[in-house]
Formats: sequence, C-alpha cells, structure tokens
Amino acid sequence: MQDLDRYLNEQQARHEDELCALLRIPSISAGGAHQAAIRQAAEWVANRLRRLGLPAELLETSSNPVVYAASPPVAGAPTVLVYGHYDVQPPDPLDEWLSPPFEPARRDGNIYARGATDDKGQLLTHIQSAEAWLQTAGRLPVQLKFLIEGAEETGSAGLDEFVAQESRRLACDVVVISDSSQFAPGQPAITYGLKGLAYFELRLTGPHQDLHSGSFGGAVTNPVNCAAHMMASLMNKSGKIRVPGFYDDVVPLTKRERRQLAALPFDESEFMQQIGVDGVTGERGYTTLERRWARPTCDINGIWGGYQGDGAKTVLPAKAGVKFSFRLVPNQDPAQIAQALEAYLASQCPPGIRMELTCMHSAPGIVVPLDSPYMQAATRAIEQGFGRAPVFTREGGSIPVVNLFRAQLGVDTLLLGWGLDDDNAHSPNEKFSLLDFQRGTKASAHLWSELGQITVGDR
Amino acid sequence: MQDLDRYLNEQQARHEDELCALLRIPSISAGGAHQAAIRQAAEWVANRLRRLGLPAELLETSSNPVVYAASPPVAGAPTVLVYGHYDVQPPDPLDEWLSPPFEPARRDGNIYARGATDDKGQLLTHIQSAEAWLQTAGRLPVQLKFLIEGAEETGSAGLDEFVAQESRRLACDVVVISDSSQFAPGQPAITYGLKGLAYFELRLTGPHQDLHSGSFGGAVTNPVNCAAHMMASLMNKSGKIRVPGFYDDVVPLTKRERRQLAALPFDESEFMQQIGVDGVTGERGYTTLERRWARPTCDINGIWGGYQGDGAKTVLPAKAGVKFSFRLVPNQDPAQIAQALEAYLASQCPPGIRMELTCMHSAPGIVVPLDSPYMQAATRAIEQGFGRAPVFTREGGSIPVVNLFRAQLGVDTLLLGWGLDDDNAHSPNEKFSLLDFQRGTKASAHLWSELGQITVGDR
Repeated sequence: MQDLDRYLNEQQARHEDELCALLRIPSISAGGAHQAAIRQAAEWVANRLRRLGLPAELLETSSNPVVYAASPPVAGAPTVLVYGHYDVQPPDPLDEWLSPPFEPARRDGNIYARGATDDKGQLLTHIQSAEAWLQTAGRLPVQLKFLIEGAEETGSAGLDEFVAQESRRLACDVVVISDSSQFAPGQPAITYGLKGLAYFELRLTGPHQDLHSGSFGGAVTNPVNCAAHMMASLMNKSGKIRVPGFYDDVVPLTKRERRQLAALPFDESEFMQQIGVDGVTGERGYTTLERRWARPTCDINGIWGGYQGDGAKTVLPAKAGVKFSFRLVPNQDPAQIAQALEAYLASQCPPGIRMELTCMHSAPGIVVPLDSPYMQAATRAIEQGFGRAPVFTREGGSIPVVNLFRAQLGVDTLLLGWGLDDDNAHSPNEKFSLLDFQRGTKASAHLWSELGQITVGDR
Repeated sequence: MQDLDRYLNEQQARHEDELCALLRIPSISAGGAHQAAIRQAAEWVANRLRRLGLPAELLETSSNPVVYAASPPVAGAPTVLVYGHYDVQPPDPLDEWLSPPFEPARRDGNIYARGATDDKGQLLTHIQSAEAWLQTAGRLPVQLKFLIEGAEETGSAGLDEFVAQESRRLACDVVVISDSSQFAPGQPAITYGLKGLAYFELRLTGPHQDLHSGSFGGAVTNPVNCAAHMMASLMNKSGKIRVPGFYDDVVPLTKRERRQLAALPFDESEFMQQIGVDGVTGERGYTTLERRWARPTCDINGIWGGYQGDGAKTVLPAKAGVKFSFRLVPNQDPAQIAQALEAYLASQCPPGIRMELTCMHSAPGIVVPLDSPYMQAATRAIEQGFGRAPVFTREGGSIPVVNLFRAQLGVDTLLLGWGLDDDNAHSPNEKFSLLDFQRGTKASAHLWSELGQITVGDR
C-alpha cells in the first residue's frame, strides 16, 4: 500500500487540475436549459474512465445519460458499485458568489465552484483511487462498477427504470457513494441514516387577473393571503407538522441513538455562528442534531406572487405559487404523505381559490445496519485515509438511489462522505477542501483493499 | 347649454384622438425608470391647457413635476380646484394584455391602454369641458385651478410639501376629482367615502446565505416559513385583522348607511363572474359591499423568497420579502396602526430571524358630508351629463390627496367617478368606456354651470 499512497501523493496536482476541468462544465440539470453541458460532463467522465483502461459507455435514460464502466470480475471478492452524479444544482443567487460558479478558484486550501463537493469532487476520488491501483498493482482487488448519473439534483428521473432494466449488469454486493459530509473537519463519518423527501409545488389561482387591492381587497379571496395561511397551517411555529397522520409511521429515535448523538462533539453556538444566526428553532423536545438528522421537517423552498419590484403596487394578485418539501424518516411512506397532504390542503383551501398540487419527487428515509462486514471494512479504510476512526452519523439530506439500490439490487449502500457541512452544497460559494479531496482518494484506495478481504460466493 | 352640448358632440372624435396621444406616453411612476416619459406626459398636459389660453406651468416638486394652470377669478362664484394625475401603474404582467399597454386600442366601445381610466381619461374630461365653455361662451362660470400631479401611483411623494408651500396659490372653495368609478354602467355615483391606506414592506433575513434544506431544515429558522406564519398571524382566514388595537378607532357603519348600501342593485353572482371566482370570503357579519367600501382590510400585494424557477431546488432560503397593505376607514390613524403593527410583528418574529419593516406610504380614510351645496350641484350636473341621478357610494380605494386638501386647504372634495369597476385599473387590459368619456365631459361642463350658481364671499 506504500506504493499506492506514494503514487497518490505524486498525482495530487494532476488530480486537482482534472477536478477543475470537470467543474468548468455547467452541468445544471434543473430547468432543462443546459443539455449541451450535461452531455459534455457525461463525456468527460466517460473519457476519464477510459483513461483507466475501462470500457466506459454513455447509456441513455428517459432523462440525462448515465456513464457506466466495469473492471474485470475478481473471483471470490465482492463486486462494488460506485455511484455518483455529474449534474449540479442551479448556481443562483449569482450575485452572492465571490468567484464565478463555473470558474473554479483555489482559496485557503479549498476549491470553490458549483459541484465541487456535490458531487464532482467526491465522485472523482473513487476514479482516482482505482487508477492508482491499476497504475501501481496493475489490477483491482475487487470488481468495480461505476454508475455516474446526470439527473440527481432533479430527482434522478429515469434512473429507476434504468436500474430495473439493467439490474443484471449492475449486480453487486455493496454500493459505495461519496455524496455527503464528514462530521467535522478531519473527523470523518459514516452516514448510516438518510432522510427521505417529498417535494411539492402548490399553485393557487383566484380572480382571473390581478385586481386593485382597494376596490376588491377584503371581499375577494387573495391567493397570496391564502398561500400564507395554507403554509402556516402545514406546521406550527416550532416546525411540528400538522398534516393528519404525518407522524403515524415515524420510527422513533432509540435511547442508544440519542445517547450516541448527544455524545458527538457538536457545538451549537459554533453552528449558529457558522450559518450566521443568533438563535435556532425547531421541533420541541429534540436537539438540533436530532432535528437535522432524525426528525421529519417541512421547509418552504420558494414562494412567489404579486408585485416583487421596486416601489409599492396596490394589487390583489391573481396567483400565488409555493415550492415546499418534507424531509421524511423511516418508515414514513411518501405516497401516503402526498395523499394526506392533498386532502389536508384541499380542506384548507377557501372559496374563490383553485388549488393545484404537484408532487415533484419523493423518496422514503432509510437506515443502514451498522454491523455488516462492508461497514467494518469502510471503517478501517477511512481510518487509514484520514488517520482517524469515523463516527457514525445520520443525514438530513436525501439520496433516493440508496432506496433504489436496496429495492432493485437488494444491497446496502456505504455512505462515505468526504465533504463538510459548510461546503455550501446548493448554496453560493460551494467549495471542497483539497485536503479532503486527497484524504478521500486515499481512503477510497484503502477501501478497495479492505473490501477485497471479504470472501463472497460467485453469482 | 345647448351650444355647449352640441360643441362637445362635435368634438368627440378629436377628444378621443387626444386621449390616445396621452395614453401612448408610458408615464409609469413606480421604480423611477421612466423619467423621460413622466416629463413628456407633464408637458403634454401643460400644452393641452395652454391651448385653452390658460398659462400652464410645470412646477417642480421633490419627485415628479406638477402641472398647474388657473383661469381668471369670477367675482362671487366659487373657485374650483381640479385635481388629477398623469402618472400610471406599471403594466405588468405584460403577457396578459390583449393589446400593448401603451398602444391605445379601440374595442367594443372602449379604449384599452394603461391609464385609460386611471386617470388620464377621467382628468381630460375636465379640461375638455373647460375648453367647451371657453369656445362657446367665451368664459368660465367659475374660476378653475388645475393641479395635475405625476406621482399619485407611488403615494404622491412631494405633493404634501408642494400643497403646503403653494396653499395661497391653490386656495379654493371645493376640489373636484374624477379618479373613481360609477356604481354600474350608466348608473353614475358620487363617492362620499374613501378608505385610507397603510402600505408596508417586510424583509426577513435568516442564515447569511441559502442553505441545503436537507442538512439544515428543521433546525434553522426558515425565513419563508416565518413569512408565512407572520402574515397568517396578521389576520384570520376570514380577513379579520389580529393586530392588537387595530379596530379601536373604527367608526362603525350606521344603520342608515347599511340600509342604503343594501338597497343598491348589487348582484353578487354577477360580481363573482366578473372577476372569475366561484366564491368570495371576507370579514364575518358584513356584506361584500360593506367589506369593499367600509371595513378595514389587509392584502398581501407581493411576496418572494427562495427558488422560483423551473424544477425543484431543495434550498432553505436566506431571505424572504413581503409587500402588504391595510385599507383603513375613519377614524383609524395610519401612524398608530404602523406602531401597533411593528410591535406585533416583532412579537411574532422567532429566534434566528432579523426583521425590517418599512412603511412605504399611508393616508387615513375619509367621509365627505352628503348635504353641502357643492354635493347638490354635482348631483344635478351628473344627472344632466348621464341622464340619471347618481347614487351615493363609498370606495375601497384610497385618494390621499383628499386628506391633503382637507388638511392644507380646508376644503372638501367632490369625487365624481366616470369609470367602471371592471375598467381593470392597476390590472392588465385597463380600459375606459368612450361613452363614459363623453358623458363625463358633459357632466363636467354642467358642473361648472351648477357650481357657478353658488354664491361665495370674496377671499
């Protein structure tokens, strides 16, 4: 393994240049206006894999192409599916970026660009580690299958059908995904729990056009007033969700889990300072970490209606729109939640307003067993890559493919996050630590060796 | 008066062409991006008055110029101040206009353009009627002073100071304003009551930037969630306002007024059809007309925050903004309302959110006595102009200058509306009936003669 570590150290500069090249491609999947960049990013990843000598292909889906490549089988050793995504979130609000989102900039040990941590930087670590094995040992200790998709940020449209159709080709013993965060700088974590997601858009329509708020106000139902009331009716001020039955299937936190979470070195005042607030709120009876990782939540992601320009326009708007989403935990069923939500909102919708509710995407929450040999192997690999044993955490974010792989391939997923909570994923000034980029690659290289120790029967 | 009526009939085509010329000028006062058009409209009105032989001037204010012109005094007869405004509302949403807002289009007896009814068409009727007197009788039976401002749609900035400074020059016995509506097509009205206005912008700031709603949702106060809760807390679902003390000074409707309003031929199902809703809501215990004209209300005029684009962005927004306004009735004090509002919203603002509340403009409500000789004169003039006696109504809209003239000049205002409720003031496809344009001009010509019968002492 010394040769391997030495090789990785020598390649660091090239690895960073390659990351910058991928980050320059504005592969935004939302809105559908960036098809050329999407395809360019897919081609870039495929070519990168071909340089390892792997026969990489672009496989079409009903949305953006998937990049796929596999190394030769290794008898008796596990087959590992490495999943990542080459698409990114929209960069707006643009004026809050210190350097342009698609012009990677190195500052204080980080690389700043949209997609740096989510997920271009993290997915590259696994390609680089495989390359290191092939360059130094001439072979990989496990069979690797790379599945890099391009629609993750918009709900992985088309991936379900793709994985269902290609389940034989994708057959594996375990999945590895690096698309999450360490617990703290230098304190790696293995994420064993993920929240699910149910994302909705609500459109409210009142009068057939905007009206004078003086002539009609108070007598005609105002869709924006109504949007405020309907959203407020979804949750109380401390974030408790009021949709009937919403909590019925929630698996409560165990005493052991709450102890484990409470034991983590989490400094709330530091957390508040980091995000720039003088206080936090949330569901009563739960800590900030429990709210973030293990309790269902509801956030309005966007709202609009009426006059947003300068000055004062005395208008009663004809329409209002809201994007909002629930974060779900095991065993909440997104389909049941959507049904209960629609019935509840319909009951809240007053005369004179037409409502239209669309579920934009959804996935259940999941928890992965802590005691599998794969989890043990990952623990050792991370200790060698980062020089420190990982803690076991949960995530507020959602990775629907983890559910997909469980359902379609019957395997668990190792969620090995190389990022940091303050990497600004989905925000302006997204970044990835160059040190973590290096440590993640090293941990990945050791992961292939640790997983190679596990004996599996042939399939 | 026959000569006068004949002259007006002959001039109708020219009057319409002149209206179109004025409507082509996009004199939008909101946002401040249309200074050239504002000045062009002011010059157009001044030149129009000069063609009557009146020495019209542009008088600068702290915002847009006022057009002023006066005819010679008439001994023993009243001096009448005619007020109007040459500025207009922004035309957005543009895509809902059937013809461009600043390209006047004649359709089914109406002229369609932004400002057609509010207020370019209505103000022109008084200039045309004065011209008719001068062309036929060679003189006016009263002294007319024209005060046409250019910032009414943004709260008449600078007009208070102007009227205070120029109170001697503007001295008069009564003010005439046509900037409101008939009760129904062909059923003219005199508006004896107006609502006041208190218009606010609320800015809420949470984290110093947008956050990932998965990693932070439920643990960090979401400014858009908070905006929904704060707005919902302002009023209940039926529109009753919850700000403590809000109703303390409200002058209740008298039994006589409620009878009078109930007697008006108002068809609620027709009203709902007109605005395109299948039901209406509002303050319990009051009729639709009472809600519109005589009860205080609260409308959100605009709201924004987070992601408004296509697709789904799982973001916890850093900021939210709301424009909202209360419509006030006698004797509510806008300053007291603003104070109570700020205290109330502050009490509703949760930890982790910074709030900033700006009062953008305000005016108290007003009711004008029904029994003054000026009101009687207006009643007779309208009967002659429209062939039908007016009904007496109130308005949900606000005309702050009515308060200004009462305070600074000590006079009442005659609100003689030639428009219609479905003229789409402040909405797409604003229009003005060409027949009402003609009837309003005729009523105005008779008004000068009726007012001329009133004897007043010299000032």
